[in-house]
Amino acid sequence: MSKVAVVLAGCGVYDGAEINEAVLTLLSLEQQGAGYQCFAPDIEQMHVINHLTGEPAAGETRNVLVEAARIARGNIKDLAAAEVSEFDALLVPGGFGAAKNLCNFAVAGADMTVQEDFLKLARAFHEAGKPIGLICIAPVMAAAICGEGSSCTVGNDADTAAAIEAMGGRHLVCPVSEARVDVERKLVTTPAYMLAGSVSEAYSGISQCVKEVLALA
Amino acid sequence: MSKVAVVLAGCGVYDGAEINEAVLTLLSLEQQGAGYQCFAPDIEQMHVINHLTGEPAAGETRNVLVEAARIARGNIKDLAAAEVSEFDALLVPGGFGAAKNLCNFAVAGADMTVQEDFLKLARAFHEAGKPIGLICIAPVMAAAICGEGSSCTVGNDADTAAAIEAMGGRHLVCPVSEARVDVERKLVTTPAYMLAGSVSEAYSGISQCVKEVLALA
Repeated sequence: MSKVAVVLAGCGVYDGAEINEAVLTLLSLEQQGAGYQCFAPDIEQMHVINHLTGEPAAGETRNVLVEAARIARGNIKDLAAAEVSEFDALLVPGGFGAAKNLCNFAVAGADMTVQEDFLKLARAFHEAGKPIGLICIAPVMAAAICGEGSSCTVGNDADTAAAIEAMGGRHLVCPVSEARVDVERKLVTTPAYMLAGSVSEAYSGISQCVKEVLALA
Repeated sequence: MSKVAVVLAGCGVYDGAEINEAVLTLLSLEQQGAGYQCFAPDIEQMHVINHLTGEPAAGETRNVLVEAARIARGNIKDLAAAEVSEFDALLVPGGFGAAKNLCNFAVAGADMTVQEDFLKLARAFHEAGKPIGLICIAPVMAAAICGEGSSCTVGNDADTAAAIEAMGGRHLVCPVSEARVDVERKLVTTPAYMLAGSVSEAYSGISQCVKEVLALA
């Protein structure tokens, strides 16, 4: 049985991990016979967004690991303690947290940097020849993790695709129900809520992404 | 197409809606051809639990509607504004939020009271002859909503079953993959994380619960 490390960037589409994507990733892993352990970085969120109004919650701070624990029902570990040798693959659901807490793409665009501990962990998976699945907006980190020329998808968003190319990646258009595979780099990506209009649409692509990741593991 | 009102009690198993249950409820509704609208009460949570440690977060307050908006990606309305005439059924995922914010069963046991706006809404669905699905711990409110003699399940937890009986309900043992139906009252219940050991186990019972609710709608 493959065992997969799942990295969550908080809890909520606008400042953390996209909740549906996270749950559907875990569901797909179980349905396809894989085990998993959730991780998150023990850092403060970039900010807190009131998900009812869409506005920043002034003065409020939340910790990425503590909030991600809500999705994982408490069964989650500090990303800094993750051992690549214990896992066969890495999966990263999206949501703005991937672009705010795992890197700063949401504010820096193509000039972004990736959070140190996450980059170290993700590169270690890549260097060990283990497959990586990046979902939704997370593929903006493809080149930073898997190197120049990494091909990936965020669906069909032109601005994000241009930023990916500017950072040395190659963007592939992809419908919501599919995933794209960079076989050489063992990198699998799917648009999920970059395109999805419903939970079941997100599920279709995430299920494919998980399938391709496990096939490479 | 049936349209279902889904009431969320926050965002996180220990102080709000159980996240997996909420997402799997929405997924099941979509997969079975139903539409939905999420609602939550615009009230303060009973308290905030740090889901990493399991301990209360001293001094912190969060609003049930604002936090539930994380699961619904902002597409959620104040429960007080819900119109029964616009919906064919009501579904309530579990998590401690159902027993802390929709009622106070978590602290008062069989002496509990149900949150005023939620009770009014749920009783209105019942009185209109529209089916109600209660998931996980939410069935402790069965008798308060659907009257004396309401039969329901929370799985096989003896203490909770005794409390349900003390409040005038009838408890039925039920495995995680099934639901129990009180046909006379159009009440459907399933244990979900009262028994589930995994996301896919919760999915199996929730999918059944949604199926039975839609069959009665």
